[in-house]
Amino acid sequence: MSKTVELTLKGVCDFLKEHDDYLILCHATPDGDTLGSGYALAMGLNSIGKKCMLKCADAIPSKYSYFTCHFENKAIDYKTVIAVDTADIVLLGSISKDFDGKVDLCIDHHISNTHFADYLYLDSGAAAACECIYDIFAALPMALSDISASAIYTGLSTDTGSFKYSNVTAKTHRIAAELYSYNFEPAEISRLMFDTKSRGRIELERMVLDTAEFHFDGKCMLLNATNAMKEATGCNDSDLEGVAVISRSVEGVLAGVSLKEKDDGSYKVSLRTYPPLNASEICKELGGGGHKNAAGCILSGDIEEIKKQVLSVIKKALEESYAGTSAD
Amino acid sequence: MSKTVELTLKGVCDFLKEHDDYLILCHATPDGDTLGSGYALAMGLNSIGKKCMLKCADAIPSKYSYFTCHFENKAIDYKTVIAVDTADIVLLGSISKDFDGKVDLCIDHHISNTHFADYLYLDSGAAAACECIYDIFAALPMALSDISASAIYTGLSTDTGSFKYSNVTAKTHRIAAELYSYNFEPAEISRLMFDTKSRGRIELERMVLDTAEFHFDGKCMLLNATNAMKEATGCNDSDLEGVAVISRSVEGVLAGVSLKEKDDGSYKVSLRTYPPLNASEICKELGGGGHKNAAGCILSGDIEEIKKQVLSVIKKALEESYAGTSAD
Repeated sequence: MSKTVELTLKGVCDFLKEHDDYLILCHATPDGDTLGSGYALAMGLNSIGKKCMLKCADAIPSKYSYFTCHFENKAIDYKTVIAVDTADIVLLGSISKDFDGKVDLCIDHHISNTHFADYLYLDSGAAAACECIYDIFAALPMALSDISASAIYTGLSTDTGSFKYSNVTAKTHRIAAELYSYNFEPAEISRLMFDTKSRGRIELERMVLDTAEFHFDGKCMLLNATNAMKEATGCNDSDLEGVAVISRSVEGVLAGVSLKEKDDGSYKVSLRTYPPLNASEICKELGGGGHKNAAGCILSGDIEEIKKQVLSVIKKALEESYAGTSAD
Repeated sequence: MSKTVELTLKGVCDFLKEHDDYLILCHATPDGDTLGSGYALAMGLNSIGKKCMLKCADAIPSKYSYFTCHFENKAIDYKTVIAVDTADIVLLGSISKDFDGKVDLCIDHHISNTHFADYLYLDSGAAAACECIYDIFAALPMALSDISASAIYTGLSTDTGSFKYSNVTAKTHRIAAELYSYNFEPAEISRLMFDTKSRGRIELERMVLDTAEFHFDGKCMLLNATNAMKEATGCNDSDLEGVAVISRSVEGVLAGVSLKEKDDGSYKVSLRTYPPLNASEICKELGGGGHKNAAGCILSGDIEEIKKQVLSVIKKALEESYAGTSAD
């Protein structure tokens, strides 16, 4: 099939009723939404007599075991391949090539979905793929269990930063309200997902915060995260990313800069700005680009030289902004 | 009147219809819930033709100005005093004495409410006082505006850690869903309330994290927060408290200890434990007490001596727990 067929909610329910022997693919570096979607769907399909198995290129973090351990993931001779919460085939990671052109159905909420599957159920207004899965349970219908409800709650909660982000809608909260009638502990899930840190992550935070520099009357904050810090603390890139975003959320800071060392020793410079500064213009001067509020570039060389380079461009932008003159 | 009369939802609505010229009291060190409740109630009562003014012993933090700035708080010759989200008269702070025995109505959600007002509308199942206020708007009825909806959302969100705590119910999410139909930016409120830190707070975090010590194979984490840190960073006790709780949420830690210097130079020791450790038993040995999972004590003297003292009791408790013998 050369062109993706977009399905309605009724269409995807019919598809799921008509097919069987499902392989459900979660995206690589799996998060709460792809796992919540995949496991809830597998459990639901089991409940209506369909066979399922799940696959993910990467290991499934143990913190999700409160729902993953309740699904017995036995190999089956699958006939139908479904990808969940996956906007692009490459996001399947190391197994992408094995499934290129072989995904029958994709269930997703990313507006950027690349239509890589034969059939697509896309609800780009959904805060999480788990909202789509909830709708499918209700429409097909399949009965939610306490476990599948906890899996769907996990996706809603993790993809919205616990209902904080701008992707949340009234519907997200309405679904959460419905899920509360099942027997699981949403507060315990929240504690696990948001308020539990590894010792390494705490040590990484300490190291990165120790690099904090404030410049230009507190209008610029600079953080520096190195590979050595990652290695010393056993943290990964996502931990580093999580710490580096601190520079974006400090009161009075108009330019939050994080410098993250890459494997080749060069630095990824991420810049978040607030008006009147323009991140895109600043990064363009440094050979990069991006959006008005968030942009980046790659710089090589000595870290102190890199800092000087970045700070001089920000200084110029601040002076121009506050002098009321334009940048040209 | 000597005995508090508990009102039903209909009863509190009748009370509000029958009276006028309201002074609404928010508790001291005001938070999102007492302010959200007070301002939304004042705006709602205005909308049905009642006069209101608001009072709080302490300054109202500017971060709430997106709703507080929309209420013109002019002095009136008030006749009826209402306290919101206030479990005890002393929580009114420096104005407590002025209103002792003079509060006509209290609207609250704390099970611990001391019945200090003549009339009480208490919903101890509500996650926030703002849930009670929402119910009153619906039942009286009074029309919500975009601003009063944003005030109520603020109370729901801040008293639940953005829907993370165990006080959240299906109803909390249902009310949030309803509030989303009004024109305000919940995600911007969340950013302001949860993801914006002062520069001082960031510096305090750095200082406190720099004191982190891990003992007994990572089973015990110890943080030390001093008055000097508070002064150097311009932070207050609540900031200090916010940072110190980090020791409670680190993976593998069974005993999270924070030492917070008090104004008299002694140390408040807060201990959070996970099974098999018992915080109450450990703190009892140090002259304090508390609950199984969270307890505390006050210790004086040299900080290194205090640490030794605390660590030796925790060491004993760990040895006893893992030897499978009881503590006596």
